Amino acid sequence: MNLEQRLTELSIVLPASATPGAQYATGVVHQGLAWIAGQLPRDGDRVLVSGKLGRDVSIEDAKMGARAALIRALAALRDTVGDLQRIDKILRLNVYVNSTEDFSQQSAVADGASSLIYELFGPELGRHARTSVGVAQLPRNAAVELDIVAALES
Amino acid sequence: MNLEQRLTELSIVLPASATPGAQYATGVVHQGLAWIAGQLPRDGDRVLVSGKLGRDVSIEDAKMGARAALIRALAALRDTVGDLQRIDKILRLNVYVNSTEDFSQQSAVADGASSLIYELFGPELGRHARTSVGVAQLPRNAAVELDIVAALES
Amino acid sequence: MNLEQRLTELSIVLPASATPGAQYATGVVHQGLAWIAGQLPRDGDRVLVSGKLGRDVSIEDAKMGARAALIRALAALRDTVGDLQRIDKILRLNVYVNSTEDFSQQSAVADGASSLIYELFGPELGRHARTSVGVAQLPRNAAVELDIVAALES
Repeated sequence: MNLEQRLTELSIVLPASATPGAQYATGVVHQGLAWIAGQLPRDGDRVLVSGKLGRDVSIEDAKMGARAALIRALAALRDTVGDLQRIDKILRLNVYVNSTEDFSQQSAVADGASSLIYELFGPELGRHARTSVGVAQLPRNAAVELDIVAALES
Repeated sequence: MNLEQRLTELSIVLPASATPGAQYATGVVHQGLAWIAGQLPRDGDRVLVSGKLGRDVSIEDAKMGARAALIRALAALRDTVGDLQRIDKILRLNVYVNSTEDFSQQSAVADGASSLIYELFGPELGRHARTSVGVAQLPRNAAVELDIVAALES
Repeated sequence: MNLEQRLTELSIVLPASATPGAQYATGVVHQGLAWIAGQLPRDGDRVLVSGKLGRDVSIEDAKMGARAALIRALAALRDTVGDLQRIDKILRLNVYVNSTEDFSQQSAVADGASSLIYELFGPELGRHARTSVGVAQLPRNAAVELDIVAALES
């Protein structure tokens, strides 16, 4: 799989990864695994999709937010690993959805990220274990936050 | 340890694992670790224990829900790994409890899953690192969701 | 890096790690990774910082709570691994902040833990991938809970 090429085909340009404001790293590599920090749907310093599902944001908009956060996670992965070609597959995806106490379609929101992983990595390497939950709030009132663990080519 | 035999002794029949509706996998294996997707207390397409702790559901019912979700996680593990005999131990258990803003006994709910791990794996291999938190909502209004990371025999 | 010495320099005394009340372990080691259970800001059986951010607790107090929970995580790491000198670095930090539905500065709270990791491990080994989210409640009404994954020296 050529991830760079797939990104180009899908007209996706990875952002220059924002250095975390706080005292932590965009990601860490250890023994062939890359652990990536939680990502918001951001464009530079601006949160693209904010507010609470079930009240402020539509599922469609939040799906786009999950997709945008995943694109940031890929940028973080590139910055952490140095070269996207070294990435083998995504093992794990955690999706946190800013939810009212009644909104229970977190899976639909998370699909915005999962479907992009499939588009990029294909049906075999695109398989990933996912958990999605509804949280009370997120940093900067983002509608969605996600993190990933990726495997590097050995 | 013979996990199949222990399941039989405890009269537990693993369900045929539901293929995730969305675009992700039941679980992924990489370098001796199995990462399992978030599991609800489901029987086929039906959520067995739904609603919010502190309002709709008793701790006892939610504990049974955690146990049911763990049984589904074991089914997912079997489907992912191919053979339960290859599973060495559970390393990590994350438990998300659908909670009112006042309910703070998430640990008691999570014990429903932890105690089954102990029953199945015994005091040594049954040791697992656990985190339990109270979330605002969960997919399909489930009372509890959990995921695991397991180690395979080398 | 000498972690014991850094702790002494910072006048930090690790507590005797509380054995989890429930049926799980303080932490588990497998193939050079230590998975540590969720830690509250506790002193023995007492929760040091409790309540909800955005209503009951100031960010400053919750930051101290995150720091206290990280100290407990280090104690758990020592108990799990046997010797702090075997710890190479912290790979991952998950921070769960007990939040009202309007509080969105989870990152500021999590900085209380991240900054201690930096102080102890330094700018290189102190780099860690972090996710912080706002949850509806936490065990024992704690203001913050966190867990870590650490790498051992090979």
